[in-house]
Amino acid sequence: MLRPILSTHRNSGDRVSKVVQLEAERARTVKALDLMKDLVREDLDRVNQVILQHMQSRVELIPQLAGHLIASGGKRLRPMLTLAAAQMCGYTGDRQINLAACVEFIHTATLLHDDVVDASALRRGRQTANAVWGNEASVLVGDFLFSRAFQVMVQDGSLRVLDILSNASAVIAEGEVLQLLTTNDTATSEDAYLDVISAKTAALFAAACRIGPVIAERPRAEEEALESYGRNLGIAFQLVDDMLDYASRDAVLGKSVGDDFREGKITLPVILAYRRGTDDERRFWHRTLEELDQNDSDLRVAVSLMEKYHALRDTVERARHYGAMAKDALGIFPRNPAKQTFLDLVDFCIQRTH
Amino acid sequence: MLRPILSTHRNSGDRVSKVVQLEAERARTVKALDLMKDLVREDLDRVNQVILQHMQSRVELIPQLAGHLIASGGKRLRPMLTLAAAQMCGYTGDRQINLAACVEFIHTATLLHDDVVDASALRRGRQTANAVWGNEASVLVGDFLFSRAFQVMVQDGSLRVLDILSNASAVIAEGEVLQLLTTNDTATSEDAYLDVISAKTAALFAAACRIGPVIAERPRAEEEALESYGRNLGIAFQLVDDMLDYASRDAVLGKSVGDDFREGKITLPVILAYRRGTDDERRFWHRTLEELDQNDSDLRVAVSLMEKYHALRDTVERARHYGAMAKDALGIFPRNPAKQTFLDLVDFCIQRTH
Repeated sequence: MLRPILSTHRNSGDRVSKVVQLEAERARTVKALDLMKDLVREDLDRVNQVILQHMQSRVELIPQLAGHLIASGGKRLRPMLTLAAAQMCGYTGDRQINLAACVEFIHTATLLHDDVVDASALRRGRQTANAVWGNEASVLVGDFLFSRAFQVMVQDGSLRVLDILSNASAVIAEGEVLQLLTTNDTATSEDAYLDVISAKTAALFAAACRIGPVIAERPRAEEEALESYGRNLGIAFQLVDDMLDYASRDAVLGKSVGDDFREGKITLPVILAYRRGTDDERRFWHRTLEELDQNDSDLRVAVSLMEKYHALRDTVERARHYGAMAKDALGIFPRNPAKQTFLDLVDFCIQRTH
Repeated sequence: MLRPILSTHRNSGDRVSKVVQLEAERARTVKALDLMKDLVREDLDRVNQVILQHMQSRVELIPQLAGHLIASGGKRLRPMLTLAAAQMCGYTGDRQINLAACVEFIHTATLLHDDVVDASALRRGRQTANAVWGNEASVLVGDFLFSRAFQVMVQDGSLRVLDILSNASAVIAEGEVLQLLTTNDTATSEDAYLDVISAKTAALFAAACRIGPVIAERPRAEEEALESYGRNLGIAFQLVDDMLDYASRDAVLGKSVGDDFREGKITLPVILAYRRGTDDERRFWHRTLEELDQNDSDLRVAVSLMEKYHALRDTVERARHYGAMAKDALGIFPRNPAKQTFLDLVDFCIQRTH
């Protein structure tokens, strides 16, 4: 599995040196997340404190349930983007801390509601909150975190930031509804799929990045550059996520492989394998994803069809395309260590195995 | 049923004249909702237009699902409170229209999530959205309406209003979680119950009322007076709601009578009947509400126990207490037609049959 990552270089002449070069690149990008973490380490610790503080409530179940998910080893990618963007824009104040926590709260609220909608039992290798405390509590604690995010933004006092994050929240909800409508529909086009992931995932990445230049009061062009970076990174991230749902292993991804398949979600690997497949194979996809009539060997058959049509490799190819756009969006920023971590993060998101 | 409404005057000497007087009072208060509607008629029509406009989305399911609930003949009590409060405070601008729509959106989002949490099939005499479109869509469209409310508030541009409504939203979510925790627990005290309804219902009534004086830039004392009015009215309203769940008839209330009983919700009629009951009767409440082991005649038995201990009558008595506080809170406002509709509305909320 995960061979697709190297496969774009399959026509290279000098194979050995290419492989060595790729290994080096690989090693660097695997570290990209850690490098960004190092860059914002101090801020990120403060964000984690602020998250713990703001999720408190006189109703004990709220911090219990929220904490279960928040403390479960998420990458904190979105708040990190806010912190790193603020830093790259030369911001020297404190506001990025609370606002990064807001971004994580909105993300967490979305995950809680997502897991209810998908009836998921496992996330990040642990039982989901809905599996432990029930759907009802997950819906309501999601609502609480969402409200709390807005309370904290109001305390921050910037209508610009409130505008960015309330817009992102509405777009996310639209994207989630769109996803619901494409589920079990093998006729879903790649465009429709892109529309879903742009809304449900990329909108928050874009907003998280934009907050940095906004609080640093940088020119509109920098806001738009970072927003574009975030949006394209988000699309690449989700493409790889959807690939990993077929290509990863339980222990690494920390969620059940094949979840999307079992739920009949139509992601790009399915769309490509379906569109490139024979009538017989399409009947397989209809049975398994539309009628949800699945047996034990079907997931293996699905993956083999995806391999037959290079659907997983090409999903990563598509991710590279958005990754390239993300990198180019940052062209207007001068070369510096913060910018380099943003560039490397793109490669990390594409080459990651979890 | 609904006899409890007259029963507080059961010790009156001159019975006939008292009944005539009560009938006249009754006729006036039944009209109180219409009178407030008349007072804000023009504004309310505009609010309804703005609601339709703002719930639009390129994802058609969103206005479909939201419209199902929004158009289902709710009383529009909360947005009306915002409109009438703005008017009583002499506000002459336009902002009350959008903000009243925000209040209704937050309320609608809460109802959508409530019905998912309660697995309700019927509201206002129609199938619930979750019964028609499924829990998933209801959760997500609720999220959308909630986000949309914040988008509209941001457009309005007042951090004060954003503060009021984000605080109310967080408190509502806390209240809903608290309610979840008291469900099936017959040991729930009246205090704990009051805590739940103060948060889940009264907080939005209070916020809806407070917005009026805030946008009219009235002194803090008037804000607090209207907030207190709203809070106490909300408590009274919910007490009567919980009474009606045992005392009303399907056709009038527009939701299934006995819903609370079937779900094992611990409301004041139950708390009073339980605390005033015998050990045998308490075993009945344990079986039906904690173990949810219910047969066809149990709802009738429950109502008869409530009547035995005047639990429904006394729930209305408690509502009168909060209603009196609501009225007194308005003492600082001069007597005028707008104020009179606020006062009459209290009686309507207590004497209503639906």
